[in-house]
Amino acid sequence: MCELMGMSANVPTDVRFSFAALSKRGGATGPHRDGWGIAFYEGRGARAFHDPQPSAQSEIARLLRDYPLKSEIVIAHVRRANRGRVALENTHPFTRELWGRAWTFAHNGQLKGVKKRPLDAYRPIGSTDSEHAFCWLLGRLRKRFKTMPSQAALDRALGALCEDLSQLGVFNMLMSEGRTLFAFCNKKLFYIVRQAPFGVATLVDEDLRVDFAAETTPTDRVAVVASNPLTRDEVWSELPLGKLSAFRAGRLA
Amino acid sequence: MCELMGMSANVPTDVRFSFAALSKRGGATGPHRDGWGIAFYEGRGARAFHDPQPSAQSEIARLLRDYPLKSEIVIAHVRRANRGRVALENTHPFTRELWGRAWTFAHNGQLKGVKKRPLDAYRPIGSTDSEHAFCWLLGRLRKRFKTMPSQAALDRALGALCEDLSQLGVFNMLMSEGRTLFAFCNKKLFYIVRQAPFGVATLVDEDLRVDFAAETTPTDRVAVVASNPLTRDEVWSELPLGKLSAFRAGRLA
Repeated sequence: MCELMGMSANVPTDVRFSFAALSKRGGATGPHRDGWGIAFYEGRGARAFHDPQPSAQSEIARLLRDYPLKSEIVIAHVRRANRGRVALENTHPFTRELWGRAWTFAHNGQLKGVKKRPLDAYRPIGSTDSEHAFCWLLGRLRKRFKTMPSQAALDRALGALCEDLSQLGVFNMLMSEGRTLFAFCNKKLFYIVRQAPFGVATLVDEDLRVDFAAETTPTDRVAVVASNPLTRDEVWSELPLGKLSAFRAGRLA
Repeated sequence: MCELMGMSANVPTDVRFSFAALSKRGGATGPHRDGWGIAFYEGRGARAFHDPQPSAQSEIARLLRDYPLKSEIVIAHVRRANRGRVALENTHPFTRELWGRAWTFAHNGQLKGVKKRPLDAYRPIGSTDSEHAFCWLLGRLRKRFKTMPSQAALDRALGALCEDLSQLGVFNMLMSEGRTLFAFCNKKLFYIVRQAPFGVATLVDEDLRVDFAAETTPTDRVAVVASNPLTRDEVWSELPLGKLSAFRAGRLA
């Protein structure tokens, strides 16, 4: 299995605090040592960092724990391989272009028989179930809509495709096109929305505290999604099971 | 204008020495301060680093100058914007998937009217001429071949498409699918092939020397392509103008 972390905010936001927790679970406080990756959206662009090294020891992960890269949407993943060997091409998040948008996808779980689903426009580069599922999802969206549809139509269509896929097994996933952080969960995903009045939080995985009041302005709003709560002194909620959740500008739509 | 750097080798090779030179040209020894990017292939996977910051000052560039990431094919670019604002989505190299392969593309030059060329399967995410040209190239290859063709057929088809595009202006570019480093040049690109007996080289842009004999084994072979020679005590050759060059395993095919 793997762990996921996602962020949606209404202002460019630094995720070093959350990433510090997640990346520890990649080989230190958790067993997810088979690579990791993170994608940061900035406007229409997305930049991703991938490493087949355990995130707890990765030099690139260390840079990202130190360097304040601000973003409105982030998707991160630490991997414990089940299908697909440990290799760069098998590290999440995966990225493809659709309708002139950079789409990013990360998955936790296994989808029995997903590789039997026929693909057309998108082909996997690596050998994971997850990338096959992503290619299938995007291919279906592409077939259905020639150009970017309305937000409501996209939410509905993607939701139906995810419900279909989730019949095949454990399907906890994060996905984005740069505007919405989509989260689907049929087993376990937690979230928290931080907004004024901001408080203090302490990570579960290491003795690191942050006072969000000192780091934010009163109108900031930040949602964080994670496979397991990242902090020990805040209340995290479970995402509803078996349906697509959409976070926009730090708010659960 | 911009500067390009590419590498093809028969063993995973560290490009820190060449990248040190190129990244200095992004705002220190050269005026290319509008962002930079680099893609490293490892097997079928490719990982890219992008930054709209000048490479000479970028924290991410500094990490890559220090951290020995080994790769068989590398494509790097420092940007001086002419078309398309300074933004993450406009930094090269661009990446798309075709035939289950990660394709990467970086360009130096301007292509007058290229945006009038119709696109189908691939759409630009940013607003550069270069990304439009890349989408056009891949779209045409995709239309022509349902799956990855033979190497000879691919070289021929891509060569013809590049010759066509190069009629529109300055078209110096590097491109790869992970097996071949393609280089097209109608104005200026230099290359060097390093192999045994390896010597010592000194960068043009800073007082940095390397003794390749100490870093290599006798069977290693490494080709480096650059907009301007990166070292001052080696003989760099110009790539032939107006035709596609293909480097495989450190050799000009």
